[in-house]
Amino acid sequence: MAPASPQPIPSAAERFGTALHLIPELADVERVIRATFTSDVSPMRDIPEYLLSLGGKRIRPALTLLCAKALGSEKISQEIVTVAAGIELIHMATLMHDDIIDQSPIRRHKPSPYARFGTPLTLLSGDFLLTRAFGLCAKLDDEIVDATEQACIELVEGEALETPLHTDNHDLSSSLTIARRKTASLFRLAAFCASQITGAPSVTVAHMCEFGESLGTAFQIIDDILDVTSNEATLGKRPGLDIAERKPSIVNLLWLASGDPAAQRLRTPPSPDESEYVKHSLEHLRVSSVMTEAKALASRHAERAASALHAALNSSTTHNQQATEGLFAVLDFALDRMR
Amino acid sequence: MAPASPQPIPSAAERFGTALHLIPELADVERVIRATFTSDVSPMRDIPEYLLSLGGKRIRPALTLLCAKALGSEKISQEIVTVAAGIELIHMATLMHDDIIDQSPIRRHKPSPYARFGTPLTLLSGDFLLTRAFGLCAKLDDEIVDATEQACIELVEGEALETPLHTDNHDLSSSLTIARRKTASLFRLAAFCASQITGAPSVTVAHMCEFGESLGTAFQIIDDILDVTSNEATLGKRPGLDIAERKPSIVNLLWLASGDPAAQRLRTPPSPDESEYVKHSLEHLRVSSVMTEAKALASRHAERAASALHAALNSSTTHNQQATEGLFAVLDFALDRMR
Repeated sequence: MAPASPQPIPSAAERFGTALHLIPELADVERVIRATFTSDVSPMRDIPEYLLSLGGKRIRPALTLLCAKALGSEKISQEIVTVAAGIELIHMATLMHDDIIDQSPIRRHKPSPYARFGTPLTLLSGDFLLTRAFGLCAKLDDEIVDATEQACIELVEGEALETPLHTDNHDLSSSLTIARRKTASLFRLAAFCASQITGAPSVTVAHMCEFGESLGTAFQIIDDILDVTSNEATLGKRPGLDIAERKPSIVNLLWLASGDPAAQRLRTPPSPDESEYVKHSLEHLRVSSVMTEAKALASRHAERAASALHAALNSSTTHNQQATEGLFAVLDFALDRMR
Repeated sequence: MAPASPQPIPSAAERFGTALHLIPELADVERVIRATFTSDVSPMRDIPEYLLSLGGKRIRPALTLLCAKALGSEKISQEIVTVAAGIELIHMATLMHDDIIDQSPIRRHKPSPYARFGTPLTLLSGDFLLTRAFGLCAKLDDEIVDATEQACIELVEGEALETPLHTDNHDLSSSLTIARRKTASLFRLAAFCASQITGAPSVTVAHMCEFGESLGTAFQIIDDILDVTSNEATLGKRPGLDIAERKPSIVNLLWLASGDPAAQRLRTPPSPDESEYVKHSLEHLRVSSVMTEAKALASRHAERAASALHAALNSSTTHNQQATEGLFAVLDFALDRMR
């Protein structure tokens, strides 16, 4: 008989897939989301449905459900499902409004809702989803309502701070503030709501918030990295948009801080055709120490997230090992995207 | 001694002014509104503050307070003040988003927030105010939360239905549906919340809803009339925009229904310069039976509002005569604008 082949180590993507099997309730979240697309005015159903059909990792609802399970919640309550749906609806609303703000033609290889349905109906669909999200969350406890309001305010503030590099004097610190507000706010909200609704002690809730915020910040840094290192097939849109549009991304700010003279053009208004500059910048950046630094920064935030998660679980009276591994798989999956 | 001069009959504007004296709590509403403009990101304070500084009748909060007082509520509760502020914040958010959708350069004789601060920050300020409104309303009873969600959804749906005359087959009925959803929804919400929070019997609440909805519909019809009959000094923007932009306004639909061949151009896309067509149309419409019909339609909705208000007060165990007169003054003031 042939000797048993050694057990292959599962990839980050496989472990993430396994984690998703722990939360079949994600299908309930999807049902709650779809149930809010109720209107006799067809674009208010069709545009949200179109955005949902473009796919996505549903990482915020997955995080909500996994956090609740990791803290020992055997049965996922309706409140958890509701809040997970609400958070994803807020995220969807901001994607619609973002595409208008950035005039983005493409999302996930397809025309963005903005490109397909135009500004008026996309803007209104975003308002529609924001209203539905609040309709869901308003019925929950005051702490959840307050946290949801706060997260939405931070999100909007983060986007308002995201002015181009040639109009404002951004630095790495302001760039991290933007990442924290525009992206980490909803990750933090997911972790907060899950632990709060599960009835975790306040120290555990605080650690979970730190976990969500650090994970979300890492996630945004990685998004900024992928804009340089990835390709159109994976990104679903052209790489280098942060350079072309002079975004105050983490990578752009690290590049500027490096003293590289080629980065200085980021401080000037974009010209009608930025393709040559983007092409050269990407070639140069991909092999530069700027990316090493950016990846190190993402890793540091991921480590902070891991420590906070350990602290949260250690301070919790109950926890579930499998779901905890699922959360680490989410973290690894996020990091794996930048490798 | 000279004989006493006869008592002059106060004008609608004077009676409206008197009605405002009955609700000093409007200053509290204004304070609650301003208190939500809290952010360390300056545009999120400055843009709402700019819009508020452009003035306005604050008719929705005034309506909320007067309805509560008319139903015999001696002391205005904090809930009433909160909901009145929330409704005005929703209204402000939709003004910001509307200006983006319509690319309106002017609001109340000044650059619109959109024209002054651009699409990104104006869109985000609208989201900011919508979030703040929900933050206020979410703490109230479930009935209020549900009604607020429903009103916002109707409002957004009404705007989504407001497609240009050359792209959709509007008729008078769809035009009235748009008026009801985009404008009457918040008037109805104001009347509902006031009567619900005051603890009025359900039959009274239903009559008050009918009052709010009919008043709001009349208000929108009058707005559509003023676009034809008023002038730039009063409107704060050029008249005839509904014609130039092919809006499915009540007046435009009545004009089309009149069979006037000149109206048919409303069914064709606007040309780069519509000024001659607008000029001739205004001159013609101002003396045409179309305006008589539009005014009659506004009056019918105002009469419906008056009947519903009488029915509401008759079904209520308590009511206040002065505040009731104040509500009729609001109705008269609205109608007076079209005379």
